[in-house]
Amino acid sequence: MRVNGKPYRTIWLAGDRRTVRIIDQTLLPHRFEIVDLRDLAAAVTAIKTMQVRGAPLIGAAAAYGVCLAMADDASDQSLDRAYDALLASRPTAVNLRWALDVMRSHLRNRRREERVEAAYRRAAEICEEDVAINAAIGDHGLEILRNAAAKKSGKDRLNVLTHCNAGWLATVDWGTALAPIYKAHDSGLPIHVWVDETRPRNQGMSLTAWELGQHGVAHTVIADNAGGHLMQHGMVDLVIVGTDRTTARGDVCNKIGTYLKALAARDNQVPFYVALPSPSIDWLIDDGVAGIPIEQRDASEMSRISGRLPDGTIVQVDIAPEGSAMANYAFDVTPAHLVSGLVTERGVCEALPQGLRRLFPEGARTAESKAHA
Amino acid sequence: MRVNGKPYRTIWLAGDRRTVRIIDQTLLPHRFEIVDLRDLAAAVTAIKTMQVRGAPLIGAAAAYGVCLAMADDASDQSLDRAYDALLASRPTAVNLRWALDVMRSHLRNRRREERVEAAYRRAAEICEEDVAINAAIGDHGLEILRNAAAKKSGKDRLNVLTHCNAGWLATVDWGTALAPIYKAHDSGLPIHVWVDETRPRNQGMSLTAWELGQHGVAHTVIADNAGGHLMQHGMVDLVIVGTDRTTARGDVCNKIGTYLKALAARDNQVPFYVALPSPSIDWLIDDGVAGIPIEQRDASEMSRISGRLPDGTIVQVDIAPEGSAMANYAFDVTPAHLVSGLVTERGVCEALPQGLRRLFPEGARTAESKAHA
Repeated sequence: MRVNGKPYRTIWLAGDRRTVRIIDQTLLPHRFEIVDLRDLAAAVTAIKTMQVRGAPLIGAAAAYGVCLAMADDASDQSLDRAYDALLASRPTAVNLRWALDVMRSHLRNRRREERVEAAYRRAAEICEEDVAINAAIGDHGLEILRNAAAKKSGKDRLNVLTHCNAGWLATVDWGTALAPIYKAHDSGLPIHVWVDETRPRNQGMSLTAWELGQHGVAHTVIADNAGGHLMQHGMVDLVIVGTDRTTARGDVCNKIGTYLKALAARDNQVPFYVALPSPSIDWLIDDGVAGIPIEQRDASEMSRISGRLPDGTIVQVDIAPEGSAMANYAFDVTPAHLVSGLVTERGVCEALPQGLRRLFPEGARTAESKAHA
Repeated sequence: MRVNGKPYRTIWLAGDRRTVRIIDQTLLPHRFEIVDLRDLAAAVTAIKTMQVRGAPLIGAAAAYGVCLAMADDASDQSLDRAYDALLASRPTAVNLRWALDVMRSHLRNRRREERVEAAYRRAAEICEEDVAINAAIGDHGLEILRNAAAKKSGKDRLNVLTHCNAGWLATVDWGTALAPIYKAHDSGLPIHVWVDETRPRNQGMSLTAWELGQHGVAHTVIADNAGGHLMQHGMVDLVIVGTDRTTARGDVCNKIGTYLKALAARDNQVPFYVALPSPSIDWLIDDGVAGIPIEQRDASEMSRISGRLPDGTIVQVDIAPEGSAMANYAFDVTPAHLVSGLVTERGVCEALPQGLRRLFPEGARTAESKAHA
């Protein structure tokens, strides 16, 4: 999508076709800086320090990390070293392991002289696959937005609420929940996005607002507390969020606070959609509240915040009383019955076991065979 | 309540019985500083800059502002000037006007020589009345907490969630929602408080956590997004919040985000109580969602935050992308059907028209006569 009027992806190759370029997302929304990754260590650092974040983008960055390692030394030892170093950079990211497995099995049985080219080709494919999934989610979601807009009989722009960042910055391009919004905007549908700030890491305020603004999409940042009030007063036509993991029956694990918005949506008859790339379906779990362990992250994410001083310097400040305990649950689970629909790359389905099984029969079958094994 | 082991109120007189002392709440939780108010201008500034905040405390500060004006010049003109200046300091605060009306009618028909003494006496009474109301709310709420603790059969401390700051810092002493918690703690009941950060002004993180910590009450600060997850997992036994305005039938207007917590409480069968001093009952409104106008505050409360640098300096930093719009709705309305009970100074009642009318028949009667007039 666009930054300063120019189209970007979140990860791409420099003119030498070897150096990997990313946007340093830790500096957003304050500064837009492109970072060159020239070796494995730089790729590991980029993932570890969250210069790149978002499951699909982490996967792509890991794939290119393997490329950089191969360009330096195409030996088996180098391949294993890259695999281990990248896997350890963010231990809980599912896409990370998946991308590394794809790369390793693609390279292992190849001759060394072919490995560099093969690695860069496969990494590029991983990126294109992600873009294709998100573009398809965007097309299917666009239909939902068009129908919602038609119901308003054109008297006002469509007001969509989103939580956290499920935009292009979290993927290679388009994003998941924001893909339909970009498609709507680009096709001329009048749309306005309520952006939840998304404490404690503020991905909504820092990333979603920034990327919508750069692409020219009308938006307003609100406190995470505000969505219920807006829905009570008819100011939200539709909610769409991303997901980190969705169970076979459609329970949605997503950024902490998503569940509260889903409750408010139901209480006010506002449709609540989840943009769901199929790699994030967990076919082995049904009951998300009971079955998905919720990561607790460092308390400093609550008590410390990054901001700009009047002279433009970026500093970290402490905002909490000294000595107060903090808890930092990263995700919550929205039960399927609160979800109006799952927007996947193969179309939209109900948040029911038969919904996902119909769209992805092969995924359901694999899970069943694993369960019986 | 206690600060550094020493009991405090939020407003008191210095040894000269003329100078008014307050805690500069704009510096919390970073610094505990006492400010001397020596004249009307200082009182106006204290209210305007939110060195004092919270409806009951604003009322008390305004009453003492009149005292300071009288000590300087006990004329009728001085009284009117003080009234006007103080009223303009926070135009929407209901208690402010009420306290000023009480003071003016108490002083107007008195001889000048008596006015200073009479003013200080009446201001002290306003403070004592607030303390008495809150202490009574604390006693009634304590029964609820004791019953909830008894149901847990002593296997764990009682976990109470609260939103915003309805503690002693918002009143003269005790607070409203926190009064039962302080009473429980002081009586030895094992209790732990989940403190919602309460964006955008962070009163939970800055004030509630600070005052609970100073008094020695176990607590954990959470993002506003986290309460639903905690309730899903049985980690909250009870919710208690304050209110800025509650309608005759029990719709509760309180800090933005309260409604979302009430929805989560209902979805998880967690009791949801509101501490309600009777001056905040609005007998003239039934339907709170339709009838209560919601104040929108400055966007800078969203985009700018105050914190400590590593060297202890307190600075303001900008956390938002430049150019993104912000909306800052200050309150929301929780419909009465989500409220388990209203804890008033006269006891606990259901959030129903007959509930409040039974406890406060004179209030209901006054409203009816106004409605018929």
